[in-house]
Amino acid sequence: MSLDAILARIDQDMPEAIDRLFELLRIPSVSTDPAYKDHCDAAADWLVADLKSIGATAEKRVTPGHPMVVGHVEGNGPHLLFYGHYDVQPIDPIELWDRDPFDPELQDTPSGKVIRARGSSDDKGQLMTFVEACRAWKAIHGTLPCKITFFFEGEEESGSPSLVPFMKENAEELTTDIALICDTGLFESAVPAITTMLRGLLAEDFTITGPSRDLHSGMYGGIAMNPIRVLTKALGALHDETGAVTLDGFYDDVPELPDEVRAQWQGLGFDHETYLGDVGLKSPAGEQDRTPLEQIWSRPTCDVNGIWGGYTGDGFKTVLPSEASAKVSFRLVGQQDPDKIRESFRNHLESYLPEGFTVDYRTEKGSAASQMSIEDPAFEKARKALSDEWPRPAAYVGCGGSIPIAGFFKDLLGVDAMLIGFGKDDDQIHSPNEKYDLESFHKGIRSWARILDALSN
Amino acid sequence: MSLDAILARIDQDMPEAIDRLFELLRIPSVSTDPAYKDHCDAAADWLVADLKSIGATAEKRVTPGHPMVVGHVEGNGPHLLFYGHYDVQPIDPIELWDRDPFDPELQDTPSGKVIRARGSSDDKGQLMTFVEACRAWKAIHGTLPCKITFFFEGEEESGSPSLVPFMKENAEELTTDIALICDTGLFESAVPAITTMLRGLLAEDFTITGPSRDLHSGMYGGIAMNPIRVLTKALGALHDETGAVTLDGFYDDVPELPDEVRAQWQGLGFDHETYLGDVGLKSPAGEQDRTPLEQIWSRPTCDVNGIWGGYTGDGFKTVLPSEASAKVSFRLVGQQDPDKIRESFRNHLESYLPEGFTVDYRTEKGSAASQMSIEDPAFEKARKALSDEWPRPAAYVGCGGSIPIAGFFKDLLGVDAMLIGFGKDDDQIHSPNEKYDLESFHKGIRSWARILDALSN
Repeated sequence: MSLDAILARIDQDMPEAIDRLFELLRIPSVSTDPAYKDHCDAAADWLVADLKSIGATAEKRVTPGHPMVVGHVEGNGPHLLFYGHYDVQPIDPIELWDRDPFDPELQDTPSGKVIRARGSSDDKGQLMTFVEACRAWKAIHGTLPCKITFFFEGEEESGSPSLVPFMKENAEELTTDIALICDTGLFESAVPAITTMLRGLLAEDFTITGPSRDLHSGMYGGIAMNPIRVLTKALGALHDETGAVTLDGFYDDVPELPDEVRAQWQGLGFDHETYLGDVGLKSPAGEQDRTPLEQIWSRPTCDVNGIWGGYTGDGFKTVLPSEASAKVSFRLVGQQDPDKIRESFRNHLESYLPEGFTVDYRTEKGSAASQMSIEDPAFEKARKALSDEWPRPAAYVGCGGSIPIAGFFKDLLGVDAMLIGFGKDDDQIHSPNEKYDLESFHKGIRSWARILDALSN
Repeated sequence: MSLDAILARIDQDMPEAIDRLFELLRIPSVSTDPAYKDHCDAAADWLVADLKSIGATAEKRVTPGHPMVVGHVEGNGPHLLFYGHYDVQPIDPIELWDRDPFDPELQDTPSGKVIRARGSSDDKGQLMTFVEACRAWKAIHGTLPCKITFFFEGEEESGSPSLVPFMKENAEELTTDIALICDTGLFESAVPAITTMLRGLLAEDFTITGPSRDLHSGMYGGIAMNPIRVLTKALGALHDETGAVTLDGFYDDVPELPDEVRAQWQGLGFDHETYLGDVGLKSPAGEQDRTPLEQIWSRPTCDVNGIWGGYTGDGFKTVLPSEASAKVSFRLVGQQDPDKIRESFRNHLESYLPEGFTVDYRTEKGSAASQMSIEDPAFEKARKALSDEWPRPAAYVGCGGSIPIAGFFKDLLGVDAMLIGFGKDDDQIHSPNEKYDLESFHKGIRSWARILDALSN
């Protein structure tokens, strides 16, 4: 059987597949920091060359930010688009890494072999699962079973500023029968997942300014309002005692979970004590009247991702700073409108500013939540193919993270997106010591080979 | 008259006095940062040499931290001790300085000539006013009118860890009839002041730890408690709506201001709108039922001097950090006990910690407030001498800052301290672009010459 030959080829080619991934992981393509611009470019070049090596026509496409990589393979059957991103998160705090984040290593751990490097799970390792599946197919058959478009971006970790303009300008080229997105995770080790519900994201980055200069707390303490006091009062009031977000109208457009979905989720037997215990936590911090899985998958949230102000070095400085800053993000669900939530947040923040204080906002971005329609038979074909590869059947699940691309395919191109990935909760993406299980990489490649086969029939 | 000759000598010697001060200002003696240790040592060496140049026996005295400088000049009349500190505050944020903080310059400004450099006002410029007064006296008379002990420390800006042990070990050598401390300011440009009421200081530097590692807010947002949320909630609750500090028992040992002192302060005509307006602020931020002068001089305060956590670089990182940190200080008055306030603060903070969260404290220091007894006739002699030098009579005032040394002289050595200084509110001590008015330096030297004369009679 031809699929068996392809799966065997994948198994046999694993050492070379790992070498190729390591080459890509060695390129420090941090998109959010301008200092890494040339490296993002180098990662795009590497992908172009690799796609060409499997017979695709591939190009680096210029944007005002980091380049896109677009490749095509002609073929019969349905037209699939495959999306991934080659950029990675910043590496700080670097002192918490056990090794150079951009010197990948295959490591033995108590739970199996892992690929340790920044981007191994998010998203270079995942992106390469699909490329390697195509490579094996091509090696056995000389052709691919479908017409395929590869679409890789380099700004996913910095808000994708060039994505929508690029998709609009190249709409015809990027419109396919379905989009496959590999940037999500397994439900658990043995249970693969197709994510059908994604939270949106709104990010605010701002500085409150009060006094015109830093002041000595001995001379001004008591009489001068401290911007850190203003900031902590405003941020400290974002959640009430029950864990709910206090912004006006925050829950207005948040739908209740349908009973059948709630029942299906309860059937998944999510073990929140282990999920939290693995990262040193004890109790769920979200709305107390919601289940832990709802808190992650279907409820909106608010978090301060960064805060700074005043003297933060060694020793002590009794200063009243003139400024205090924070980065705050919201995960959005249902029909929550990013613009409306932003306005509500800014009203909240500004209601705490004393006369004469100002606030300067550095970010203006947001994406609404999205929900896939699983009536398309491709969903059930893919679910069955995944179930054949993994020990237990695949599940349709929600996802706390925001992958705006899924919504863009639907809204801009009219293309449904299928989110399938092989990351694990302990991959430490966005954290020091990120890893990707070798099993995720290996079975991920095999999963895509099976899905290609299923979708081509 | 001999005093006139000395004052004339001071006027004539100003260019050389400025050169000497500039030499001292060029030494970057930041005491709180270990990287500057050798520079603190160099500043002490410079002072030893300068004291020897006016005929004092002077030595650098080793401590576990930065060295003390002790010098003696034999003489008749009362035995005076003169205290100042040669260490300075850190210079960050360096980008807000108009020039190198350690390259002093005499600058013309709309309000007169100023000496621009870190430490010009706090406290190297002030310290040198006394040394220069002695130099002039010595130049005219060959001797000084009193027996004098010089005592300069290098850890005032970093909590003076070596001070109390050193004073205890050298109690006999440092016990004098009265101590003169030059580290305070004029009441206003034309009105010199003797500070008789000083707030104490308690500083807390700590980190709250929650999750065992940084988390991705997409995967954990909602379910995982964010240490920044805990920190902002706890710090945001330190003040109530009226500006009062909410800690249990905070005001228990805070005395009411005697009616006669309140009346005297009202007579000073303090213009809080100008005081605040000069630094870009509009309304007093302290307890709303207290006058602005009480808020600075006689009421206790609480301020966050630094806060940090999560991602603070360029761009955005949707991280749930494992840690969040702050530096908080309290200005204490009356009989407030630093240990009791520390315990109350820690109880407050820890009441916000969810199960499993921990807090690590890095500081353990505090000093109570102090109040001078002005019955000693030296106070009235000095006040009259100051009144002779400046356009308007000198006032007895309070001070928001904390100068623990004053309490130590009384408690450890039984010596009363007289706090006289020539700094101005706009000197930007502890801030970028610190300056000391040339008039403060010049009339400060002349003031000490007059006070030496007054105290010797």
